[in-house]
Amino acid sequence: MTLFDPGPGPQPGAGVPSAAGTTIRLRLELAYDGSGFRGFAAQAGQRTVAGVLADAIATVVRHPVTLTCAGRTDAGVHAEGQVAHVDVRGDVETARLWKSLDRMVGPEVVVRSLSVAPDGFDARRSARARHYRYLVLQAAAADPLLRASCWHVAEELDLRTMMAGADVLVGEHDFGAFCRRPPGAAPGAPVVRRVLDARWSECRPLLGRLAAGERLLAFDVSAGSFCHQMVRSMVGTLVEVGRGRRSPADVMALLRSGDRSHAMAVAPPHGLCLVSVDYA
Amino acid sequence: MTLFDPGPGPQPGAGVPSAAGTTIRLRLELAYDGSGFRGFAAQAGQRTVAGVLADAIATVVRHPVTLTCAGRTDAGVHAEGQVAHVDVRGDVETARLWKSLDRMVGPEVVVRSLSVAPDGFDARRSARARHYRYLVLQAAAADPLLRASCWHVAEELDLRTMMAGADVLVGEHDFGAFCRRPPGAAPGAPVVRRVLDARWSECRPLLGRLAAGERLLAFDVSAGSFCHQMVRSMVGTLVEVGRGRRSPADVMALLRSGDRSHAMAVAPPHGLCLVSVDYA
Repeated sequence: MTLFDPGPGPQPGAGVPSAAGTTIRLRLELAYDGSGFRGFAAQAGQRTVAGVLADAIATVVRHPVTLTCAGRTDAGVHAEGQVAHVDVRGDVETARLWKSLDRMVGPEVVVRSLSVAPDGFDARRSARARHYRYLVLQAAAADPLLRASCWHVAEELDLRTMMAGADVLVGEHDFGAFCRRPPGAAPGAPVVRRVLDARWSECRPLLGRLAAGERLLAFDVSAGSFCHQMVRSMVGTLVEVGRGRRSPADVMALLRSGDRSHAMAVAPPHGLCLVSVDYA
Repeated sequence: MTLFDPGPGPQPGAGVPSAAGTTIRLRLELAYDGSGFRGFAAQAGQRTVAGVLADAIATVVRHPVTLTCAGRTDAGVHAEGQVAHVDVRGDVETARLWKSLDRMVGPEVVVRSLSVAPDGFDARRSARARHYRYLVLQAAAADPLLRASCWHVAEELDLRTMMAGADVLVGEHDFGAFCRRPPGAAPGAPVVRRVLDARWSECRPLLGRLAAGERLLAFDVSAGSFCHQMVRSMVGTLVEVGRGRRSPADVMALLRSGDRSHAMAVAPPHGLCLVSVDYA
């Protein structure tokens, strides 16, 4: 696994003619329940979102395809507004392909839109910002209806210090302490990212009532791009702050160290969702 | 299957001494994801919520037990605040039993509280009101993260007429047209229930963003008791009103007819949740 959202880079042209005819680049917007998948990216012998979609598209267009996405979500991570592109050859009726995919990929993956991509579009490299939300249910007992999308934390959390800790993370920093580095990468190399916004808020569950002292918390974080496991490392660290085991000053010290060996808990994947991606 | 929430009736005493010693009545508050269950009530050879719980409790207390609940939810229907009672013999440490159940029944069923019931308590007969919520997602595409708890309706719905239709249902009426009668029951016998409140509201999903024209709607309905499939029949009918196929006046005519053969669609079970139960 290489970096998560590698950010801008060279942009290969879309709609390039190929030997077998014209190549058309399609843009897909996707929602998925990540529970039953080994993440987004195709991996041989594993059920992944890109694998399931690529198989379905290949069946319709009759040649193998590869999907490229804005945010390579890990195993168990969800998406409401993932964006991907795929290059297909020959004449493709987008409405017919969309309808076929809807039938083929099933209820865990939904293609929210499918269209011919604008010139030069690259789902990964053209993305300007990614928005993630992480849900934490602070309650004595877990909630069966939220178990696939919320991290259940039984201890009482101090929201005020978690908010102060989140403030520390906003801005351009070396997030080396919050990134899982690819195998073979130099451990000390800086991993600079610009976090545009990071904040906690209280939500109301759609079903049921929270008992006194129970809270459903959402962590919303936006950045130009993220490195691998960055949001889950942030949430894991901030929940440690909420539990009183670490302080916002510790978050700053961790950030400055740039060293993941000092990192605190990584939050579980199922609380995380890629909400949307911005393009120019 | 007999009536759903039969309402008040004779109250068998709790805590009655039995031949084998003292019988203690326990009160349980339950939340469950109904997706994988054939409803609440125990049925031989079927996986039901009461069946799973009764097996677990019987393993701990070492005698067979029967659960009685406030609202006998159908296959696929969820609960956040179901209340049940169960009579157990001998000395039972409630804290230890609760902990054992938590380990045994798994993430789809959560025992939110477990305590010795007050004198004369009967989960079904002592209940004064039941509160249900039904979720409808009106959107072009389904949402994978809401698929277990929302009915997806692709057509645009007229919320104003749905609200007017809901108003018709409030009050004491013969809900025969909205009830599935038990086999052998006289088709014309009145099924009088008092609906305390019935209203539609718009909600925000916890994850993702609704596109323009898309809505997440909640139908909240409270009554002293409900007959079988009453909430789902109400929602099915009101969504027909929202689609413009029926009017609020049709809802009134249907209610007055008392005849289920005139009934419109019954909404699917997975959108329904028993939110809470009131006791005196």
